[in-house]
Amino acid sequence: KINESRINATIHESCEWGNTPDGGMNRLTANDDDKRVRDWFIAKTKEYGCSHKIDAIGNIFAIRPGQNNSLPPIAIGSHLDTQPTGGRYDGILGVVCGVEVLKVLHENNITSYAPVAVVNWTNEEGARFPPCMLGSGVWAEQFTTEYGHTRVDLAGISLGDELKRIGYVGSEAASFRTNPILAHFEVHIEQGPILDKEEKPAGVVRGVQSMKWYNLKITGREAHTGSTPMDRRSDALLGAAKMIVEANRIATTRDLADRGARATIAVINSSPQSINTIAGEVQINLDMRSPFDEDVAEMERQCRENFEKVCEEHGLKLTFETIWTSPAVNFNEVMKQCVRSSALELGCNMELTSGAGHDSVYTSKHVPTAMIFVRCRDGVSHNPAEYTRPEDCAAGAQVLLGAYLRYDNY
Amino acid sequence: KINESRINATIHESCEWGNTPDGGMNRLTANDDDKRVRDWFIAKTKEYGCSHKIDAIGNIFAIRPGQNNSLPPIAIGSHLDTQPTGGRYDGILGVVCGVEVLKVLHENNITSYAPVAVVNWTNEEGARFPPCMLGSGVWAEQFTTEYGHTRVDLAGISLGDELKRIGYVGSEAASFRTNPILAHFEVHIEQGPILDKEEKPAGVVRGVQSMKWYNLKITGREAHTGSTPMDRRSDALLGAAKMIVEANRIATTRDLADRGARATIAVINSSPQSINTIAGEVQINLDMRSPFDEDVAEMERQCRENFEKVCEEHGLKLTFETIWTSPAVNFNEVMKQCVRSSALELGCNMELTSGAGHDSVYTSKHVPTAMIFVRCRDGVSHNPAEYTRPEDCAAGAQVLLGAYLRYDNY
Ligand SMILES: NC(=O)NCCC(=O)O
Ligand SMILES: NC(=O)NCCC(=O)O
Repeated sequence: KINESRINATIHESCEWGNTPDGGMNRLTANDDDKRVRDWFIAKTKEYGCSHKIDAIGNIFAIRPGQNNSLPPIAIGSHLDTQPTGGRYDGILGVVCGVEVLKVLHENNITSYAPVAVVNWTNEEGARFPPCMLGSGVWAEQFTTEYGHTRVDLAGISLGDELKRIGYVGSEAASFRTNPILAHFEVHIEQGPILDKEEKPAGVVRGVQSMKWYNLKITGREAHTGSTPMDRRSDALLGAAKMIVEANRIATTRDLADRGARATIAVINSSPQSINTIAGEVQINLDMRSPFDEDVAEMERQCRENFEKVCEEHGLKLTFETIWTSPAVNFNEVMKQCVRSSALELGCNMELTSGAGHDSVYTSKHVPTAMIFVRCRDGVSHNPAEYTRPEDCAAGAQVLLGAYLRYDNY
Repeated sequence: KINESRINATIHESCEWGNTPDGGMNRLTANDDDKRVRDWFIAKTKEYGCSHKIDAIGNIFAIRPGQNNSLPPIAIGSHLDTQPTGGRYDGILGVVCGVEVLKVLHENNITSYAPVAVVNWTNEEGARFPPCMLGSGVWAEQFTTEYGHTRVDLAGISLGDELKRIGYVGSEAASFRTNPILAHFEVHIEQGPILDKEEKPAGVVRGVQSMKWYNLKITGREAHTGSTPMDRRSDALLGAAKMIVEANRIATTRDLADRGARATIAVINSSPQSINTIAGEVQINLDMRSPFDEDVAEMERQCRENFEKVCEEHGLKLTFETIWTSPAVNFNEVMKQCVRSSALELGCNMELTSGAGHDSVYTSKHVPTAMIFVRCRDGVSHNPAEYTRPEDCAAGAQVLLGAYLRYDNY
């Protein structure tokens, strides 16, 4: 049985590095705090009999031997990196639940059938190095290691260089082929409002919705804000603003909205950033999602069409480039059944589709994968106010433990 | 008579520092290039018998003695700083016209009645250190020297520190009281399309339109772009986008537009700049102008009212702060008459109102001031493509010379 106070103590212990005065977290991938929490994770899991593999993209596999060590391990994974305005649960809870399972096995002197691995995947958030789920994506060969290493942050620093700097480019190849796992479980806060509204501590995740990221560049013409008549302007920021409003309008039209469509622009860079020079170039990133691949495609079609109209109206030029695509995913039936039966023991009978991407999306490409969602207050995430009750953290870990043992048995 | 090839050579000589590969200029106030062109300006004007006063905000007065040196000098001023995407004429032409007048006096052994001063005003553009016309504004006691020194750029570096670093905090107090001038002439490119359309090389400036700058902060709530339903968001960037579109709509409504209203947002900073975190805070600057103070007031009223509606709709908070106000200005009649008669000799009979602010706005608060506009191609300014024909530069200088000599005589 999971130890509620111990697992909650471990969550906050792991938040010693990168916490912010508002109670949240800012631990961007491969910064000094990420290095420290990685060191902590390795030291901690050593205490429970783990040896470690670190791969070329910095994923850490803490492996506790089983009875049959010729089998690949059953993995329990998530991530320790956070958003710049992140909370203490997103990702962290999943890794700590894995550590808690190790502790329960260890204190009860249980040797599992297959080995078990707790995995810290690199750069799940994609906040510093877009796109997200990069570490698990490289391992799943959805991206090359080279691609992963060459992702850059806003300052132009590459992930490869930063991993080298903090000593986390491992000797293991980052691949499910040479470093396989048998299955992947992941506990994660829901980051949405459903479990909170339904008053359930945990739920079974059906799958993950369709997601697509885009990079847009709008080019106008720099000109004087005071002396340039309104009808002689090519204002790139006005064009970008109209596109932001339009993307929102499209995602909230009745049909698409009813089926759960979402569209967001959260990153904007305008140039030359002078109060009295009309913006000549604006870059924005568009994030579009829906449970249905075809709805994302439809939103993209409408955006492309209507953004071009904005450009025509204002004499602007547009480049509209896809930078990341993750089609809708359904998790493995056997794995889900293990989660389902374990969850039912706690009276948790809800099934949900994830609005957020998770490392489980990429592991599911090659191995049986399932996820457990834990309720979080008001569905708030990517915010320092993100909060999950101690008893719910324990409930999530308990569902994981039951599901994991069932699968190990199976 | 003005020497056309000499004045154009001097323009390009002065653009040796801070020019960009696209043929434009990027010489932000108090950077290394600004220091170099200031050194050049002092060396150059020394050749024509000038001594120099540098004041506490870095304004440089190159003074050539006259017959009656108990009189303050008649000033010819403009600025050598540029926009980040600036051209080779905005400001520069005005200073170089002053230098050319000195050359003409010098080569003809003319001793004017009053002394003459060519002035390089500090930070006219306000691009690096908002607001604009800061050097002339401090001299005119519209701002304190302390206020000027404490303006900061986007990196938080202050103008005072940068002026000290480049050695241009002068010993002269920055004040029209202790360092007076008798009058102020300024040649400037029009930065608008009128002279170009009317095929006139130069024109008389009636005055300068009303201008106001604002700083707006929109506060929403960071949340996950994937898991947060569209109707549970407080998206600060969506709110800002709606305000940008709304400001544009207001300035282009029939009545306001017919009277020449302009509204622009060109600076935007969104936080936390992560593709999958809804923006929690956005800062924008609004620039509003019109020939009529009451139209700027009316646009402000409508913006305040309608931006609040945007905030209500999206659960946002708004702070809406005025950071700079410059009411409409009419130049001095006697000075304008001098420009008018001089311009007529070249067949230039057009009178225009300036859409851009100029140092002459602040000098006009205390001394007779007038301006001469020179045609620029397509009215394009604050853009590397800004261009004024060599013969038009010479025409502007010729009108200046005639006007200045008339006033010196008067
Ligand atoms: N769990 C989580 O917040 N992941 C970030 C990936 C996404 O944008 O959905
Ligand atoms: N001349 C000029 O571009 N000045 C900048 C001040 C303004 O914004 O109007």
